[in-house]
Amino acid sequence: MDLIDAVKFDDKGLVTAIAQDAESKEVLMVAYMNRDTLKETLETGKMVYWSRSRQERWLKGETSGNVQTIKKAMIDCDGDALLFHIDQKGGACHKGYISCFFRTKEGDAWNITGEKF
Amino acid sequence: MDLIDAVKFDDKGLVTAIAQDAESKEVLMVAYMNRDTLKETLETGKMVYWSRSRQERWLKGETSGNVQTIKKAMIDCDGDALLFHIDQKGGACHKGYISCFFRTKEGDAWNITGEKF
Repeated sequence: MDLIDAVKFDDKGLVTAIAQDAESKEVLMVAYMNRDTLKETLETGKMVYWSRSRQERWLKGETSGNVQTIKKAMIDCDGDALLFHIDQKGGACHKGYISCFFRTKEGDAWNITGEKF
Repeated sequence: MDLIDAVKFDDKGLVTAIAQDAESKEVLMVAYMNRDTLKETLETGKMVYWSRSRQERWLKGETSGNVQTIKKAMIDCDGDALLFHIDQKGGACHKGYISCFFRTKEGDAWNITGEKF
């Protein structure tokens, strides 16, 4: 697929994938895809990552139901990062927050500022 | 610094850093920081990356003038990615676009959809 040929996978065969809420524009999470899960992502319109910790295919929402449906897919100038505008069912974070970026620097601490879903 | 102790650097000593426009919420670029450049970033309020290609400290805008001033810094649930809301002077992309994600999937092609600055 020409689309995937433009992607520069790293030495582990992965590319960075950012999921951004298509409506609120909130950045929800960042994870990784390999060639196969990127192909599946582009073909199905659902975000399918490669879990580095479990070393396995990770269809987001497969167990939680919090699937991510793609509205727009973008690639960066270097081809080593992808940005997806998505519709997030439920929330993105396994800790119960809408976004994985639920902690904000306030002085010398990371304080919880994100909202739960 | 407690803030940096919460960060999980990868096996190359790097953490993913996403720069998002504080106002438009457009995702502008993704790059990497090591411990030293993250410390400098948090202390100065300007985005300082680690260039993987040049293997050197990279103060964004040092040569181009397109500096990134931090408005908000967030960390994700795993501590292995950082999200910065920034004010971008000029544009983020060295190819002249506001965002490095200036190409969008349209059918089987990545077409240029981003705006130049």
